[in-house]
Amino acid sequence: MFITFEGGEGTGKTTLIAMIKEYLINAGKEVVVTREPGGSKIAEKIRQVLLDNHNTEITPHTEALLFAASRAQHLDEVIIPNLDKIILCDRYIDSSMAYQAYGRDLGEEFVKSINTYALNYMPDLTFYIDLDPEVGISRVNKNRTDKKDRLDSEKFNFHIKVREGYLKLVCKDQDRVMKIDGNRSIEEIYKEILKVILERLWMILS
Amino acid sequence: MFITFEGGEGTGKTTLIAMIKEYLINAGKEVVVTREPGGSKIAEKIRQVLLDNHNTEITPHTEALLFAASRAQHLDEVIIPNLDKIILCDRYIDSSMAYQAYGRDLGEEFVKSINTYALNYMPDLTFYIDLDPEVGISRVNKNRTDKKDRLDSEKFNFHIKVREGYLKLVCKDQDRVMKIDGNRSIEEIYKEILKVILERLWMILS
Repeated sequence: MFITFEGGEGTGKTTLIAMIKEYLINAGKEVVVTREPGGSKIAEKIRQVLLDNHNTEITPHTEALLFAASRAQHLDEVIIPNLDKIILCDRYIDSSMAYQAYGRDLGEEFVKSINTYALNYMPDLTFYIDLDPEVGISRVNKNRTDKKDRLDSEKFNFHIKVREGYLKLVCKDQDRVMKIDGNRSIEEIYKEILKVILERLWMILS
Repeated sequence: MFITFEGGEGTGKTTLIAMIKEYLINAGKEVVVTREPGGSKIAEKIRQVLLDNHNTEITPHTEALLFAASRAQHLDEVIIPNLDKIILCDRYIDSSMAYQAYGRDLGEEFVKSINTYALNYMPDLTFYIDLDPEVGISRVNKNRTDKKDRLDSEKFNFHIKVREGYLKLVCKDQDRVMKIDGNRSIEEIYKEILKVILERLWMILS
């Protein structure tokens, strides 16, 4: 089962994935936790180019293509070899749709065309943690002591467009993408997501 | 005028470009010499990931996407701002067609789909220096004292497929791509190419 987690900045994806992983491992499941961009040696090298604060010259087209390259590598090295386990992946193609197609105005058609390889491996289940960008970004600024990366520093309007993009994706693909209200405690969000995953696992097993 | 130079390993592209640049500058033209992958700070960073001998895990899809990313960046930073000058570019999208679509068997459709941005900016003129890979590679091995990069080390059969790819491209786009017999002295090849460029410049001016 290939499960992805999507959402803007400060939605708690990383914490949620760690909690779900712990539950599933305690329940005896084989779990692989990974993230995009990155998740393998080459993909992490591409991540470094993408998120380096000095690389301000990266154009929207290049950015989208680097995400697609990192994704293709991550697919071959991490996702495809582990499809028999439960994969919990922090961001996937929906991030490219929300951030590049909508946030950067590159359009769905362009982003899909450069991600044709990933379109062959769509997640079984995607949780989109929905949160007002103002709340998410203030959380990021409060919690992080490390330097913010290039994408965190983007102007606020960009994050508004990213959220609108995600909400369009939820409408278009309701069978796969589940919108989760991120304006609650991590514990409440965790319980809702876990319930959905366990129901889905139960359906597969029965 | 946007002119690209294509061909396998050891076809003398770099030397030819330097000779043509010198002629055109002496003739009072504004000339920009550049290369792919690379040609700008970000594109050179992507080039490092692509050509590093340690990155043996790079899959064909990732490779093709990294070339496309490097190309998009190079387009915005170098090609598009200089289209009013004479641009001499060492490799462009035809390299991706020959090396990735044919050499790596990814197919024309995939390579075109990830290069939609570059397809909007096709060269006015492309010289494909045709040479038996056996001759070209033996030249590379003889002349170079530096370490061979990752692509140079590919198996011989790959270079045969690359050449076949280039020959197909010549047939498909005869108005733009000109096949040059690379089995001659650099001086002879230089004279042939220069003649074509000068005729074309003359046509534009008259």
